[in-house]
Amino acid sequence: MPNAAILAVGTELLFGQTVNTNAAYISEQLQLLGYNVLYHFTVGDNPGRMKHALALAFREADVVLTTGGLGPTQDDLTKEMIAEEMGVKLVLDKEAMARMEEVMLSLGRKNYTENNKKQAWLPEGAAPFYNTAGTAPGFALERNGKTAIALPGPPREMEQMMRESAIPYLAKKSDSVIYSRVLHFYGIGESALETALLPIIEGQTDPTVAPYAKEGEAHVRISSKRASVEEAAAAVNLAAERAQALAGAYLYSMDGEEYWEVVVRLLREKGKKLAAAESCTGGLFAGMITSVPGSSEVFDRAFVAYSNESKAELLGVAQETLDLGGAVSGPCCREMAAGALSHSAADIAVAVTGIAGPGGAIPGKPVGTVFFGVAVRGADGEPRVSVSGKNFRDRGRRVNRRVCVLELCDLVRKELERD
Amino acid sequence: MPNAAILAVGTELLFGQTVNTNAAYISEQLQLLGYNVLYHFTVGDNPGRMKHALALAFREADVVLTTGGLGPTQDDLTKEMIAEEMGVKLVLDKEAMARMEEVMLSLGRKNYTENNKKQAWLPEGAAPFYNTAGTAPGFALERNGKTAIALPGPPREMEQMMRESAIPYLAKKSDSVIYSRVLHFYGIGESALETALLPIIEGQTDPTVAPYAKEGEAHVRISSKRASVEEAAAAVNLAAERAQALAGAYLYSMDGEEYWEVVVRLLREKGKKLAAAESCTGGLFAGMITSVPGSSEVFDRAFVAYSNESKAELLGVAQETLDLGGAVSGPCCREMAAGALSHSAADIAVAVTGIAGPGGAIPGKPVGTVFFGVAVRGADGEPRVSVSGKNFRDRGRRVNRRVCVLELCDLVRKELERD
Repeated sequence: MPNAAILAVGTELLFGQTVNTNAAYISEQLQLLGYNVLYHFTVGDNPGRMKHALALAFREADVVLTTGGLGPTQDDLTKEMIAEEMGVKLVLDKEAMARMEEVMLSLGRKNYTENNKKQAWLPEGAAPFYNTAGTAPGFALERNGKTAIALPGPPREMEQMMRESAIPYLAKKSDSVIYSRVLHFYGIGESALETALLPIIEGQTDPTVAPYAKEGEAHVRISSKRASVEEAAAAVNLAAERAQALAGAYLYSMDGEEYWEVVVRLLREKGKKLAAAESCTGGLFAGMITSVPGSSEVFDRAFVAYSNESKAELLGVAQETLDLGGAVSGPCCREMAAGALSHSAADIAVAVTGIAGPGGAIPGKPVGTVFFGVAVRGADGEPRVSVSGKNFRDRGRRVNRRVCVLELCDLVRKELERD
Repeated sequence: MPNAAILAVGTELLFGQTVNTNAAYISEQLQLLGYNVLYHFTVGDNPGRMKHALALAFREADVVLTTGGLGPTQDDLTKEMIAEEMGVKLVLDKEAMARMEEVMLSLGRKNYTENNKKQAWLPEGAAPFYNTAGTAPGFALERNGKTAIALPGPPREMEQMMRESAIPYLAKKSDSVIYSRVLHFYGIGESALETALLPIIEGQTDPTVAPYAKEGEAHVRISSKRASVEEAAAAVNLAAERAQALAGAYLYSMDGEEYWEVVVRLLREKGKKLAAAESCTGGLFAGMITSVPGSSEVFDRAFVAYSNESKAELLGVAQETLDLGGAVSGPCCREMAAGALSHSAADIAVAVTGIAGPGGAIPGKPVGTVFFGVAVRGADGEPRVSVSGKNFRDRGRRVNRRVCVLELCDLVRKELERD
């Protein structure tokens, strides 16, 4: 199994202004390709420290990937330092030069500088990785059994070059591949899920089954490392089916889909339209549903009824209901759901009213008290409404509201699957 | 100016499962304390690689901070490796032992293991940093002019120990402090902002004025490094005032407040209530406004009018308007804003309708075409409505919708400041 190290070059990382998400992205990709990551390094635009880090990286790693320092200024030294470390000189890459000239002309910059031309020089013998999301090319360079791969620093450019050039290049060098799937569960905690999945966790070395908590949900990553992608995929798919058999009641997505994406897909499949009446989530549920491209086909409208007056006026909640039980109550939620259905063209309407915190708690109704409603049109044309109350643990306003959005998604999915 | 390096110990970081946010947090704090950060390293629970990284770090850095590897298992080796590198042995810290026993008893674990006791051993001569958010203590150890600081890996424990112990410890060793402010601008690009601020950027070494782009906004970080926090703050505040004089028309926040936080604060100050009619943002504007605690005092309601029918039914948009100009048009937006005002108890209503992409573009209306409306109650009781059209550059559905939310915030702020 080949070893790898990652060297990030960038002063903004050492200042703490930017978090090094590149290292995590590249590490994850390397894992999937069957590489063992030994080190991450970050240095500024400093030749001495780049040299020290490269030397330490190459001591144990077969492949060293760098990010950043490929730009046109005198500060950008990554190419020079890699060439020096590997004992080659820089030569002009004509294709890189032609591409750079084309970009400069298209930007109307006829008098691009010598600095810009610097980007077209690559280490002699390097395989160029042309940049389709920016101007600075990257490359792979092999010498004496070691490989250096240079990538740009901006995450969008780096990820595109990884996908288009570096991953295919590295896949050829690895003798094993990793295949992974992430299963999403809602309504079960991380430890309860781990207990439920024990039969496929205990004593297993491949595939690995790893549950982890994720702001109101639980995710499970199933990974297998095998000689071929077909073998690895077969092992992962079998474990995923066993996970479904063991904890399927809580499983909402087997391929990393977010819950709102699942809801939009199911609505499209069933040809149903959705409406919502939101109080404590304040539009966040509608905002997440409509974050999915194409949601306009299945999402009719939402009533963000934040004030008591708006609950009465928009949804027809009776003043008596508000006076007797308050806005955070089962009866109010029932009328909100029924009102959202009757005041819309939707087939399903959901409603939520609760206390998101940090303020707003009242005796008997702490932060985390939330009521949920679902209304559908019954066979007789009358709305059929069901309401449930929850006492969520207070995890701060942001997470409390997110959990409410997940619960609403859960209610819509279960209603659609009941059909 | 003292030099520092940061060493993170954790296999989950090398797997790419976890992003190393600790390094960015610590770097930012070290900057503020006047330390120059030279390196970040990440290694797994591997004694050889920890040793290599520590040796390289101590070659140039006066202070090396580690995160992780302080737990009770055999894998956790950070203390041992630091003690070895600095030539001291581990000794039992009685206070750490007493605290650990207390926690274990409070958890009902009478038979805690030898492993747990391992956490109470610290390098001889170390100043202990007791952990008030977990069990593993950290420490500072000085030998031969070099300082090692060991912190736990979980971000919450690490940050608490930084605040309580490491920052006060490091502040004593530094001869300068950094003070910073972040100014938020909307409606001006990063380079245009840089040009506007040239008089306070060019030739300045302290305070530094650094503009950077942030998904539809531009931020400016102003930092000063001086002998005292008072001197640094005075220099930063003066530069902030000059930035306000140079580009105040686009400045919405001088202390890092998000635009929706500014809007909620201004509404409270003016005693005004807000409503919204959202099409392409699909509830996201209301969702962001109501993410601010206390927004219920100023936010009345929102109409998420996603379908054409809902625009007519909820907001009274005329069928003729929809037929003639379509839902993405100035006249439709005007009627949406007026409808949101007349169908609510708000003093100000905003409306938005546009094409968020990736689908939905029509001839003459590419993705990024958006109309915005603002309605207020005029002196005569009649609504006063203004509408504007924008052609935003398509930056993907998520950012397109975020820019719409920022524009709505901008419209509300300008309306409130007109009063």
